[in-house]
Amino acid sequence: MKPSSKNSPLRILPLGGLGEIGMNCMVLEYEDEMLVVDCGLMFSDLDHFGVEFVIPDFSYLHARKEKLKGFLVTHGHEDHIGALPFALKSGLRAPIYASPFSSLLIQARLEEYGIKPDIRTFKPGESFGFKHFQVHTTSVNHSIIDAAAMIIDTPYGKIIHTGDFKIDKTPFYGSHLDENFFKRAGEDGVLLLLSDSTNVERESESHSECVVEEKFEEVFAAAEGLVLIAMFASNVSRVGQIMKVAEKLGKKVAVGGRSMEQNVRHAQKLGYLENAQRVQIGIEDVKRFNRDEVVVISSGSQAEFGSALQRISHGEHKHIHVGPGDKVIMSSRHIPGNEKVIGRMINQLFMQGADVLYGAVKNIHVSGHATKPELKRMIEWTKPRFFLPIHGEYSHLVHHARLAEETGIPKDRIQVVTNGTLLEITPDRFEVVEKFEEPRVLIEGREGNEMTDLVLRDRRQIGERGVVFSILIRNIESRLILSGPEIILKGVAPPDREGFLIEEAKKKVHKIIDKYEDELDNGSPQMDLQETIRIELRRFFNANIGKKPTVLPMILDL
Amino acid sequence: MKPSSKNSPLRILPLGGLGEIGMNCMVLEYEDEMLVVDCGLMFSDLDHFGVEFVIPDFSYLHARKEKLKGFLVTHGHEDHIGALPFALKSGLRAPIYASPFSSLLIQARLEEYGIKPDIRTFKPGESFGFKHFQVHTTSVNHSIIDAAAMIIDTPYGKIIHTGDFKIDKTPFYGSHLDENFFKRAGEDGVLLLLSDSTNVERESESHSECVVEEKFEEVFAAAEGLVLIAMFASNVSRVGQIMKVAEKLGKKVAVGGRSMEQNVRHAQKLGYLENAQRVQIGIEDVKRFNRDEVVVISSGSQAEFGSALQRISHGEHKHIHVGPGDKVIMSSRHIPGNEKVIGRMINQLFMQGADVLYGAVKNIHVSGHATKPELKRMIEWTKPRFFLPIHGEYSHLVHHARLAEETGIPKDRIQVVTNGTLLEITPDRFEVVEKFEEPRVLIEGREGNEMTDLVLRDRRQIGERGVVFSILIRNIESRLILSGPEIILKGVAPPDREGFLIEEAKKKVHKIIDKYEDELDNGSPQMDLQETIRIELRRFFNANIGKKPTVLPMILDL
Repeated sequence: MKPSSKNSPLRILPLGGLGEIGMNCMVLEYEDEMLVVDCGLMFSDLDHFGVEFVIPDFSYLHARKEKLKGFLVTHGHEDHIGALPFALKSGLRAPIYASPFSSLLIQARLEEYGIKPDIRTFKPGESFGFKHFQVHTTSVNHSIIDAAAMIIDTPYGKIIHTGDFKIDKTPFYGSHLDENFFKRAGEDGVLLLLSDSTNVERESESHSECVVEEKFEEVFAAAEGLVLIAMFASNVSRVGQIMKVAEKLGKKVAVGGRSMEQNVRHAQKLGYLENAQRVQIGIEDVKRFNRDEVVVISSGSQAEFGSALQRISHGEHKHIHVGPGDKVIMSSRHIPGNEKVIGRMINQLFMQGADVLYGAVKNIHVSGHATKPELKRMIEWTKPRFFLPIHGEYSHLVHHARLAEETGIPKDRIQVVTNGTLLEITPDRFEVVEKFEEPRVLIEGREGNEMTDLVLRDRRQIGERGVVFSILIRNIESRLILSGPEIILKGVAPPDREGFLIEEAKKKVHKIIDKYEDELDNGSPQMDLQETIRIELRRFFNANIGKKPTVLPMILDL
Repeated sequence: MKPSSKNSPLRILPLGGLGEIGMNCMVLEYEDEMLVVDCGLMFSDLDHFGVEFVIPDFSYLHARKEKLKGFLVTHGHEDHIGALPFALKSGLRAPIYASPFSSLLIQARLEEYGIKPDIRTFKPGESFGFKHFQVHTTSVNHSIIDAAAMIIDTPYGKIIHTGDFKIDKTPFYGSHLDENFFKRAGEDGVLLLLSDSTNVERESESHSECVVEEKFEEVFAAAEGLVLIAMFASNVSRVGQIMKVAEKLGKKVAVGGRSMEQNVRHAQKLGYLENAQRVQIGIEDVKRFNRDEVVVISSGSQAEFGSALQRISHGEHKHIHVGPGDKVIMSSRHIPGNEKVIGRMINQLFMQGADVLYGAVKNIHVSGHATKPELKRMIEWTKPRFFLPIHGEYSHLVHHARLAEETGIPKDRIQVVTNGTLLEITPDRFEVVEKFEEPRVLIEGREGNEMTDLVLRDRRQIGERGVVFSILIRNIESRLILSGPEIILKGVAPPDREGFLIEEAKKKVHKIIDKYEDELDNGSPQMDLQETIRIELRRFFNANIGKKPTVLPMILDL
């Protein structure tokens, strides 16, 4: 990969994941070629206003559509693949390069949207090329199987994208991250390292996935009743360990939740979970066994509304109930923002009589992200000329940049930037050239309808304070009021106060009408009738209920 | 205190704080006398629907109004005093018994509501009596000064209410919790212990408040710029330590935020913070000093909208800006549910260029609640016959009950219950006699208007999906449609789609009108015009935007 004679710079544009955990998306662009590494979504915390997801804004890609040559996917988590349906539906066309397990997840997701994607499956370790870019993949350890890091040869040198990774010397599935892959690159010279910042604030080495196995065995063996494990559906290694321990102890394993079932099927298709055929039973068959003979794996660890675990916690699941003697293991982290609903669900499970292991209980969960010492090693192995911390809250990026500086990278070769910051890189410089407005799109519902700021603002207002409609009928010729006002309140006041408020509000409007008709008698009215009603009714409600609802006054000319 | 000849049971009714952190409120009732220990509020996580607070439902108290003889306040935190204005405004009348600092906070709060309360100030250590109850108070260590525990002599024996407490051998202000007060009671015999469950899941001993002093000194001394400390306004001991360290290092201290200023004034009134007159400067004078000469204490540690720190994080504070070289210390816990907004604020502060110390950074904050070993000691000292864990999530109550069992209290003498569970106690039995519906009231706005389920449901619907109004004008005699439909959308779709949707929706309604008028021609119409419009428009929007908004069809007869 040689630079062209034009000395064009290589452009790097993060569209997501820098400044938040979620919706990872990174654009690499050189002359007539553009690659996108990961294309994820983020679950919205504005779901009460109908916002379901947040995805990257693809405007930059659309403006250079013909250059787009590929989506490179590091692994199959939602925050890395979840925006692909919306990208493709919006008219972006390019093959998707993904590992086998990621490919299955992407395919299933795209099929839901009726999209037939062009997926080019690579096995981590394989390479593939473009005109200006050559991509070398390698397997990394993470909380999903088939996760990959990538070295991308560019006209100016190697760019390493770690994806999400940790260094696990004893992974349950897959191989130990190959440090020589990174060291060799470091020896050859690395232009830029993009590295996962999620756990940079954790000082101690991450634990191997295999520590949960011992803990699970301890809990399973001691269980007097059912054991229920809540976890992310895509963590196939953990499912494998659960099945292994269950088999050892002569227990059966049932799987609850649509995504959980789907992931198990996908994994089996690829040769994982070979013990499933021996230990797995249908969720509907749990009741046929003694309670202490069964382990149930369930999705819903984030207390998602309608999820298996959430229904179980309310005693509303068709097949699974928990009670005294049963153990629930919360084997996943809390996604920030979910703490309160998860806490409530745990309380509910305790109220059902179950014992719940969660939070600080040791070894019921291990993170899939490298901690500070591992991240330091990655920098030491790859000795990059330039460094860009990715995948993290802004605070994580700052701490990762500090770590890089401590590890010997000069401060002026490190960029701490957020989404929408266009960077240019050559062997001599790595700099910000433009800052776009925050490239995020709020998505309402699975269809992918965009939610605009205006609609969101309206929903905020009516959701917080309710809405008042006032209707008048006016004679189109005489401009006299024929009838009204009719007033409707929604979400404003309880029924026992509504009658009074509506009557009083009508009196207010009648006074305005009197004034308006006086003005009419004296020539043409000065007042803006509609606006006056709006302002006066807002004042009226503020005086009576301490809040100004949205007032929509309407005048129908007849 | 002897039981009456009637052998009436003593009733205990938690109205708040059991099953959540917040709105603590416990009723004690014996024959013609009723006391309420604490009367707190909880901040709502439904603020986007206009719900500001949650408070206990006082119906039980209202039904026995004349029995109410006192509100006993353990300390001045909002979750212990914040519902007093609403209780008094609702017509409950009784003196409030509170320690000096708590009294000042209560007085200030009640004055905001124009209430002149009857406050009977006690110094922790003092006793006061009622007909059937004798209350002995003692000072306990907590994250606010003047916190008290209470031993309440009842006709059936001693009930101990710990309030919020920890065991701090080196408190900055106040004395070390007097273990003999509790031990003596234990020797005399304790009927029931009510104890703070907040930190029962923490295995290691709590840290003394004084550990922050050393950390602060280290940070202050090394600071190249301004030091900004965000904390709860009521933690006067921490303010005292900050002022002490600042004075030692020759720095000035400014205080930002209304509640922070108020608390400092109250504390000074009681003789605390005597160094304030030497080190305190006005917030508007900060700019007159070198940046490394000033420490600013600010409220807003929970990222409350409009708070000092929140404005600083956005560079919008009138007097305080932070930037490179400045340190921000987040010296408080995250209240569950606030994690995400606090995280965003921390990101914002980093983006301003400041360095932020938060989360796991050692000794920048210590909790005010006893951990497992201290809670165990409390049980060992008091050797209660019966035990009721209070002040905690349900999971905390369960763990505290387990601890009590491990400490030797038989399981059948422990009750784990949530708010609204009426208990009866005599020397022989401690049992649930009734379970009321969850006694909580949602409060909209500071005026204390109650938010009903119905209004909340309406707001949820219109907030999540928007609202559609459809208006028709009908001839009252012929019942023919004279005009319309007029259709208004609010929070439904972006402006560029509104026109199309309204036109299509009108076509739908016109079709319904045609059908209606056909039926009218053939006699009296069968259809419910209004309901048909509602159903058809919901269907129409579902088909077009994938969501069913709230549809309010109106027919005006003229």
